[in-house]
Amino acid sequence: MTESIVISGGTIIDGRGGAPIKDGVIVIDGKRITSVGAVSTPVPPYATKIDATGKFLTPGLMNSSIYLFCDRPPIATIRYEGRYDELIIEAAQLALKGGVTTVFDAWGPREYLIKARDDINEGRQTGARIYCSGAIIGTGGPVSDDFYPDAREALFEYGNKLNAMWEQGVGRDLMSQSLDEARAAVRRYAESGVNFLKYAVTSINPEKPPYIVFSPRFQRMIVDEGHRAGIPVRSFSVSVEGIHLAADAGADILGHADVTGPSQGLLPETVDLLVRHRTPTPILATPEESFVWLKKFAPWYENIERNHRALLRAGAKVLLATDGGILSSNTKTNPVLTEVPYDRLLDDPTRGHFNWLLAAEEKGLNAMDSLIAATRDIARAYQIDSDLGTLEAGKIADLLILDKNPLDRAENYRSISQVIKEGRVVDRSALPTKRLLSESD
Amino acid sequence: MTESIVISGGTIIDGRGGAPIKDGVIVIDGKRITSVGAVSTPVPPYATKIDATGKFLTPGLMNSSIYLFCDRPPIATIRYEGRYDELIIEAAQLALKGGVTTVFDAWGPREYLIKARDDINEGRQTGARIYCSGAIIGTGGPVSDDFYPDAREALFEYGNKLNAMWEQGVGRDLMSQSLDEARAAVRRYAESGVNFLKYAVTSINPEKPPYIVFSPRFQRMIVDEGHRAGIPVRSFSVSVEGIHLAADAGADILGHADVTGPSQGLLPETVDLLVRHRTPTPILATPEESFVWLKKFAPWYENIERNHRALLRAGAKVLLATDGGILSSNTKTNPVLTEVPYDRLLDDPTRGHFNWLLAAEEKGLNAMDSLIAATRDIARAYQIDSDLGTLEAGKIADLLILDKNPLDRAENYRSISQVIKEGRVVDRSALPTKRLLSESD
Amino acid sequence: MTESIVISGGTIIDGRGGAPIKDGVIVIDGKRITSVGAVSTPVPPYATKIDATGKFLTPGLMNSSIYLFCDRPPIATIRYEGRYDELIIEAAQLALKGGVTTVFDAWGPREYLIKARDDINEGRQTGARIYCSGAIIGTGGPVSDDFYPDAREALFEYGNKLNAMWEQGVGRDLMSQSLDEARAAVRRYAESGVNFLKYAVTSINPEKPPYIVFSPRFQRMIVDEGHRAGIPVRSFSVSVEGIHLAADAGADILGHADVTGPSQGLLPETVDLLVRHRTPTPILATPEESFVWLKKFAPWYENIERNHRALLRAGAKVLLATDGGILSSNTKTNPVLTEVPYDRLLDDPTRGHFNWLLAAEEKGLNAMDSLIAATRDIARAYQIDSDLGTLEAGKIADLLILDKNPLDRAENYRSISQVIKEGRVVDRSALPTKRLLSESD
Amino acid sequence: MTESIVISGGTIIDGRGGAPIKDGVIVIDGKRITSVGAVSTPVPPYATKIDATGKFLTPGLMNSSIYLFCDRPPIATIRYEGRYDELIIEAAQLALKGGVTTVFDAWGPREYLIKARDDINEGRQTGARIYCSGAIIGTGGPVSDDFYPDAREALFEYGNKLNAMWEQGVGRDLMSQSLDEARAAVRRYAESGVNFLKYAVTSINPEKPPYIVFSPRFQRMIVDEGHRAGIPVRSFSVSVEGIHLAADAGADILGHADVTGPSQGLLPETVDLLVRHRTPTPILATPEESFVWLKKFAPWYENIERNHRALLRAGAKVLLATDGGILSSNTKTNPVLTEVPYDRLLDDPTRGHFNWLLAAEEKGLNAMDSLIAATRDIARAYQIDSDLGTLEAGKIADLLILDKNPLDRAENYRSISQVIKEGRVVDRSALPTKRLLSESD
Repeated sequence: MTESIVISGGTIIDGRGGAPIKDGVIVIDGKRITSVGAVSTPVPPYATKIDATGKFLTPGLMNSSIYLFCDRPPIATIRYEGRYDELIIEAAQLALKGGVTTVFDAWGPREYLIKARDDINEGRQTGARIYCSGAIIGTGGPVSDDFYPDAREALFEYGNKLNAMWEQGVGRDLMSQSLDEARAAVRRYAESGVNFLKYAVTSINPEKPPYIVFSPRFQRMIVDEGHRAGIPVRSFSVSVEGIHLAADAGADILGHADVTGPSQGLLPETVDLLVRHRTPTPILATPEESFVWLKKFAPWYENIERNHRALLRAGAKVLLATDGGILSSNTKTNPVLTEVPYDRLLDDPTRGHFNWLLAAEEKGLNAMDSLIAATRDIARAYQIDSDLGTLEAGKIADLLILDKNPLDRAENYRSISQVIKEGRVVDRSALPTKRLLSESD
Repeated sequence: MTESIVISGGTIIDGRGGAPIKDGVIVIDGKRITSVGAVSTPVPPYATKIDATGKFLTPGLMNSSIYLFCDRPPIATIRYEGRYDELIIEAAQLALKGGVTTVFDAWGPREYLIKARDDINEGRQTGARIYCSGAIIGTGGPVSDDFYPDAREALFEYGNKLNAMWEQGVGRDLMSQSLDEARAAVRRYAESGVNFLKYAVTSINPEKPPYIVFSPRFQRMIVDEGHRAGIPVRSFSVSVEGIHLAADAGADILGHADVTGPSQGLLPETVDLLVRHRTPTPILATPEESFVWLKKFAPWYENIERNHRALLRAGAKVLLATDGGILSSNTKTNPVLTEVPYDRLLDDPTRGHFNWLLAAEEKGLNAMDSLIAATRDIARAYQIDSDLGTLEAGKIADLLILDKNPLDRAENYRSISQVIKEGRVVDRSALPTKRLLSESD
Repeated sequence: MTESIVISGGTIIDGRGGAPIKDGVIVIDGKRITSVGAVSTPVPPYATKIDATGKFLTPGLMNSSIYLFCDRPPIATIRYEGRYDELIIEAAQLALKGGVTTVFDAWGPREYLIKARDDINEGRQTGARIYCSGAIIGTGGPVSDDFYPDAREALFEYGNKLNAMWEQGVGRDLMSQSLDEARAAVRRYAESGVNFLKYAVTSINPEKPPYIVFSPRFQRMIVDEGHRAGIPVRSFSVSVEGIHLAADAGADILGHADVTGPSQGLLPETVDLLVRHRTPTPILATPEESFVWLKKFAPWYENIERNHRALLRAGAKVLLATDGGILSSNTKTNPVLTEVPYDRLLDDPTRGHFNWLLAAEEKGLNAMDSLIAATRDIARAYQIDSDLGTLEAGKIADLLILDKNPLDRAENYRSISQVIKEGRVVDRSALPTKRLLSESD
Repeated sequence: MTESIVISGGTIIDGRGGAPIKDGVIVIDGKRITSVGAVSTPVPPYATKIDATGKFLTPGLMNSSIYLFCDRPPIATIRYEGRYDELIIEAAQLALKGGVTTVFDAWGPREYLIKARDDINEGRQTGARIYCSGAIIGTGGPVSDDFYPDAREALFEYGNKLNAMWEQGVGRDLMSQSLDEARAAVRRYAESGVNFLKYAVTSINPEKPPYIVFSPRFQRMIVDEGHRAGIPVRSFSVSVEGIHLAADAGADILGHADVTGPSQGLLPETVDLLVRHRTPTPILATPEESFVWLKKFAPWYENIERNHRALLRAGAKVLLATDGGILSSNTKTNPVLTEVPYDRLLDDPTRGHFNWLLAAEEKGLNAMDSLIAATRDIARAYQIDSDLGTLEAGKIADLLILDKNPLDRAENYRSISQVIKEGRVVDRSALPTKRLLSESD
């Protein structure tokens, strides 16, 4: 017999965009919601009752772009070799502690991401639900030229070994292969258990002009292989041209359409393309004070700001994204990161998403659209909206109970009273269950 | 009254592919050939007579890819600032000394190339006739990331100034511009007096996988702008994918279809593409012993060798190219260059083309096709074949008189007896008229 | 009641330089030797009897310079943080397995060296007896400018933390301090439990000319502070001038008098100085084939070879030294290390000393002097000869039983039958007790 | 018959420290002063008369440390190869324009310095009188590790050639030589026509702790060789220890006793040593606002400031020094140099010394001592005070006529009315006679 929960008395903001339901009742049976309404249907006997009077219910938050393991210097990488799943779970727990019930990991060591994902999904571990892509197709590993060439040289052959764990046979070498060889590698990868594909349209180093990684026919091949394997395909680019190429190739999600390099903002035709096709794009909205990393690249930042306004004004389908992850105390000694309190950055898995929501408010996105950008639209983008993203009968019971109305002020998302994931109340005080990389709050 | 020359008694190999004409006569009036034949038409009185009995006449050689000023460390660049045209003329004279009557300069400081070209064309200076492209669109200058980043840092702001002389507003920055901005820059450049456009399809650094520089629509724009300005467009690429992209964009000349990176050789479909469209491609054929620079990149070299065989077997339209230029005595101290006698390299403007012809022979190209690859087909590729490339009545009188038959052995191209350019016998012993960078032979 | 051992029937080479004792008897009571002679004194009842008929007995070997933990890339450093003593013990066990009963560790993390040393000395762990100096006074840690600057930058602040573990407050900063400040730091260090001091007379980077680290009065101060703390002081230098400075300062042991830079060998006056004062010097004698690392620095190597001959001819007091340590399998991928079989290098803690003995033989050192350079003279140099270094009544019972006569051929040192350390037969097959860095033999 | 000048009516500050002579008269005959006094001796007929009523006369200023050619990026070095004497003369003319009649060049290409010096001394060129040392013994050339390693690599072999011009066989290689070899090299150098020797006691790179370059006996050798050749010896050091070593070695001038590294200021014993032995030391006093270069090295700067105070309070014999030289417009694009107006830096040869005098005033040096530090004491330090440094009968007639009293305010040194060098009025408006590196004022 499954457990049942009845939450009554609160205001339900179901994530579908309609008016909130005052004095609403949500009935959960096992992992799923069985009813959502103003007047309760008969409730199961023995159900746990939660009095939500004066409180506010929303779907569990989602983060469309996170890096559950991404600490830059290869210290954790070496120290926890063979145990990266533990680091990934630690980050997923920190996200869940902050009300994020589902995360989309956009870069990491495939094998460990899948292990962590399955441990959580199959109930062996607590944490935010994970969907992951593993490698970025066409991009090197963490100590490669794309990220940290100095470190590779300092590590000799071991650097190549680390890179291989991330690259999984679909790294930069693909650029030198024939279409057929590359297709075989991508196919193998698409069938290796990942939830979506992510591929590089452009180079990643923000200090150089944005090179293009793959020709159009290679890009189409990657998208086709993702679809053949039944999973969505997301692009990575840092230029306007990159967005057009990814759109032409048929990518389902256009990563970071807000990041268009140092020299130009989004063109009207590009915004129009996004709006017309309703292609979702994770964006890195942050309160102005905390855009530290990109402030170093001031011309990039100015374009990003301008792009946010253009995208929101035109009604593009933006998604909450933080590109966050646990930074070790050592990494935080990086001068650029000490200029702003850590909890104001997007990085912090427990709080970064709150900063996104504040920024969206700052930039003029209305409160309901912000919520949808953080829930339903992410579920749709990743094609899991039959199960997740809204409070509706039949859906998995992921939800937040907040003390204050998030539609009044984005700040109110911080007022979490309870987090329910798959029909269970999360013991947030117990998270993370083990601290490896993170520091106490 | 113009001067006339009658050359009689030699075997004429006119560069059109037919059987050589024994005991032939060529009549030159002024700069042009007025007749070519086995039996002479009446010759002008007072004509200078050249007895070519036992000798062999060919069109003046052409080099489809040379860098008249390209010494790597920025020493000559600094020492001869404001006088690069003199260095360019020195190289053009060395080429002419070696029987090359026309060169196509594929990278250099536009302003000085044009000055040197015009000085030669208008008779103020002797030297091989120059056609030039100046900048490589999408690529940095000589001390940029694309070539020599160390040097730029050592020079402070002056490094940027040097780069700007080469980039001419169409460098790497184009990658970060909108299509319209980029088009304006390319248009301005195409109308600036250059003879053809050269653009980068891929990145240039052979130590990294080949990134793509421009999206297809950018590439098409560049080709269109070249054509709009009435000049041919040549691509640069170092990958199979790059060749396809350039072909799709409509480039008239595909630079280095033999260079396809370290991981793969030309695909049959690519060779087929080249052959079917008869798109000409300058290739770097060199005798195996002297392929020093690329030997450093052994996997590249192996593919290049394989590609040469594939291209020649399929009958692709290859063009003689050396990518040569004068190396200063200091540059020759670079260890990689001391492994092989300098006169066996492609670099030497006076002899590099002979090495190409030897290599073509080595690789099985028949003697007549080799000659055509070094003359007529280059003229056609650059769309100047109404004036140059063969020995025909009406054409400009550029020709070589050789002591030995070049169709017997490629080695025989070295047996130059006389060089005639625009109807005048060249005083080869007087070249170069001034030695700045080059050392005595 | 202590255990007793009687070893009889073998040829005793007691390490004092006299003629070997045939058919000798050694009696051990507890940890010490109670008699050594041709005719046995009465042996204790219940003594364990070892029949050494046909075998050869020598003192346990010593290594005057080893680095028990020194793997270059900071991988083991990170992975085993907090457990370096285990790595150190592993190396000490490998040395013991090879017949080395005492090692002098000349650089490493003080805290862990002392822990490992005490664990072994107090019987909690097996392994070669360790004497250690910890820091090299005046030199940076493992990822500092002195060793591996790239690695430090790749590690951010953590690099400084690692360096501090090695530097212990007496690193390069001392060069910028006043004599009084520096004295206080050295005094603190000399009293911190290390067995000897090692200080840098010159810089360490073999690619640069040898700078001098400390002025004469600083050097005298360091020597004085060592002596004040009752421990010997050893210098490090890589130039002739450095040897003179260290000798003038009163250093007890002159590190590497054989290493005198790329430009000059030892001067006669320098050899004379060493001989006259009988100052011992650890030297890096290796069979010519295996001097890989220094072959990279050919001019250095030639001087080292010349110096060895000069030192041996003059009768300088040389000591067996390997500067060895366990190299991880990753480190062995360093191309320079793959040119020679690992077991022919000095590095291998189990076999490096055999290579030294072979090299000494090659260079003409007579067999008895070689043995003394590997035993008694090391004990004297480090002022522990009242307990160790020879087979004499009263001394600690460290000895080897060899199948073949080491005085016949240095190769015969490999024929170890048994190793006895502190009166106990070592179970060599059980070493190392735990493999962390080393690979199976 | 020589020319005579009588300057009368002004206040004479003769540089000997006594009370100024009001309404004084100076008689110059040819190059020398024949009388200085309040009441004129009979003046030669036909003498040129200068009315200095209301003005102030001082000895010509001296700069004890200047680099007449030192532009950092190797651009001028390449562009003016073979003509460095012209650049040196340009700088010497700029100095003379600013009232500096004698400069001591402390680093540069020997051959060209000597040519420029002789051209000026022998009247072929105008300019400040030059004394020069050429190489810094024990230090590399301008694109060596000591100064600009990046540039050397960018220049291939040519970098070594440039370095050799500066090093003259007494560069860093000396560190690896035997005392005898080094002595031979230094002797050769000391006899090569330089006016004094400068040698490195410590390394030069301010970003690293100060290594010691030469052992005491090497240092003594260098000093001895200087004295043997009859020229003074000056040291270079950046640490307290360096000062003691140089003083012990017997150096005549201790370079930069104010620069003692980032960690410590001068010790009382060191100041005492300088004062007791009256050893002169050029110091880099600058107005606080303009100490840009060293502000980058804040801890260095704080010690320098403290050292200045300690030296002046104790009465040490400090000398005006700027380490200046012409910076090209390109070099001025170095961000660190754009923070302060160029004319407030010490670098500017025409004005840097004024800034020194202002700074000395700021730091409390009295006006008469400042003047002596800029004239007589420099002449004494370099052992040329029998000819130069004061206004006395018999001395060479180098003097300034100022509109305002420099003893009132250091600022008044700027009020130059006339400069007389060797008995001739300098046409300052004509200087420099040719602008190569400098920009117009």
